[in-house]
Amino acid sequence: MTDEFALIERFLAFFDRAAMRALPLGPGDDAALLSVPPGETLAISTDTLIAGRHFPITMPAELIGWRALAVNLSDLAAMGATPYAFLVAITLPEPDVQWIEDCARGMATLARLHGAALAGGNLSRGELSLTITALGHVAAEESLRRSGAQVGDAVFVSGEIGLAGIGLREALALGAGDWPSLAQLRAGTAGSKALARYATPEPRIALGVALRGIATAALDISDGLLADLGHLCRASGVGAQLQLSSLPLPQLNIELTLTSSGADAFAYITAGDDYELCFTVPSARIADVASLARQLGIRVTRIGQIVEGNRVSIDGAVAPERVGYRHF
Amino acid sequence: MTDEFALIERFLAFFDRAAMRALPLGPGDDAALLSVPPGETLAISTDTLIAGRHFPITMPAELIGWRALAVNLSDLAAMGATPYAFLVAITLPEPDVQWIEDCARGMATLARLHGAALAGGNLSRGELSLTITALGHVAAEESLRRSGAQVGDAVFVSGEIGLAGIGLREALALGAGDWPSLAQLRAGTAGSKALARYATPEPRIALGVALRGIATAALDISDGLLADLGHLCRASGVGAQLQLSSLPLPQLNIELTLTSSGADAFAYITAGDDYELCFTVPSARIADVASLARQLGIRVTRIGQIVEGNRVSIDGAVAPERVGYRHF
Repeated sequence: MTDEFALIERFLAFFDRAAMRALPLGPGDDAALLSVPPGETLAISTDTLIAGRHFPITMPAELIGWRALAVNLSDLAAMGATPYAFLVAITLPEPDVQWIEDCARGMATLARLHGAALAGGNLSRGELSLTITALGHVAAEESLRRSGAQVGDAVFVSGEIGLAGIGLREALALGAGDWPSLAQLRAGTAGSKALARYATPEPRIALGVALRGIATAALDISDGLLADLGHLCRASGVGAQLQLSSLPLPQLNIELTLTSSGADAFAYITAGDDYELCFTVPSARIADVASLARQLGIRVTRIGQIVEGNRVSIDGAVAPERVGYRHF
Repeated sequence: MTDEFALIERFLAFFDRAAMRALPLGPGDDAALLSVPPGETLAISTDTLIAGRHFPITMPAELIGWRALAVNLSDLAAMGATPYAFLVAITLPEPDVQWIEDCARGMATLARLHGAALAGGNLSRGELSLTITALGHVAAEESLRRSGAQVGDAVFVSGEIGLAGIGLREALALGAGDWPSLAQLRAGTAGSKALARYATPEPRIALGVALRGIATAALDISDGLLADLGHLCRASGVGAQLQLSSLPLPQLNIELTLTSSGADAFAYITAGDDYELCFTVPSARIADVASLARQLGIRVTRIGQIVEGNRVSIDGAVAPERVGYRHF
């Protein structure tokens, strides 16, 4: 029962068969077939998570499964796309049925929440890693790109900035048996809010979709606010001015100063893994953002504005260019 | 010059900018945007290649790049799809600029041949592996699935069966400096035909497209003819009878007997990596296959017929069920 095909069957069993059947052709053939509604395009993104690099080696498979899909759906959210389907390539050191089932359970829980159908995948033996390719629908002219920010636009972020960074530090201190379950983290009955944001990020799909036609540019924060806002500015050919006191930092007893010593605000805005959205909005649409945030029950904070130039500054001080997580 | 973003720039530089610009949105944003012609679907498949498992650790990056894309385009060929775009997730132990450029060069050479646009990807540090997601266009009703074979259909394969298996043995004997270049292998000026088929498989795209409306079922041979035809039979709910003397085995001085000792015909039909197409055709369309093979200049051989049952037999002897490459 633990050969490749049996493991794949075990994995598939957790996913929504009805969603798979809604595809023109689901998993099991040489390729799946996907359809695109008339007038829309397919948004596609791929991301790899490697054990010990993108998540702690002690992390339970159920949480890994959720998180691996979440970070990919987050890219769709950042495009304003509606999730449609995804493919999962897993490399696993041993044919571990329990691991496969736990991973599938966590991933399937999130997939179901967003109506995303498992369309295919691959299973190989190797260092533990997951590469997910996520696909969503969005009309090209409504998609939220990085390149559309205009001087004078307001800059917003969802959620709290740096919360997942706190969660990561908590996660790194956990032994393999110390982790709360997915259900506990989601219900808030065990583990901190920070650990939950790190381990079980909720991709901001509803917000991304609601921002179609409102935001001029958007991306998700995976490398830290400062680095990612820098990417948005470079793609748009603009700069950004942030107000430190406006940033939605975690409610901790910190001194709001900007040094690079790590234990202060700088640590929050350079911490990765938040998977919140950062987006820009013309001043005429700022009221719409407040209104849709209320409707969705999502915290959205105005943190600054787009200016001429090509750098991000905070309270007038230009931020260092090379910040955020790098793989090399 | 060797941080993550610089490496990605180096990689991108080898790919066809015109093809990328033809996408509604190319690489560099949170997701790429792909379009689908009216009436067609998007065929999508993903496959991972890990160093030392799916290719020899001595294999030059240029050949790895070609091969990684080729095995994914082969899945599109098996669906009868026209290549459109692909995403590349690479994990690399070190920020090796030369490796990235060589890999990109090989991959870009094949991508250009088939008009496939690089749409995105991911670069991480880790054990050397490549996960490619390939996308193509095909009308759902014309797609070549595994499940359509009918009793009485003729069974065909393209090319030679087991040639890549010979090539793999040759490849495993090569030191890092002993490999022919991609150009030499393609021109046949160095390395054997078997090594070329193993290292630089040519996905049978033109054949797959030509078989639309003719083949009742198809797949590509990655795990060996016997195992893959078994998959086709299971998906179609049929059996298959092959004639050993009809099989297009490499022209070696072998005795055509069916034992599992390895040095005979059995080794060829259980060797993986051929990336030829195996397909079934109603008897009324057999002449069309011969004609299109001539037009395309591709060797296509009738090797047997679809029968009732659920097993593959060769010269009347039922083949073992568990054959072919397994990852676990």
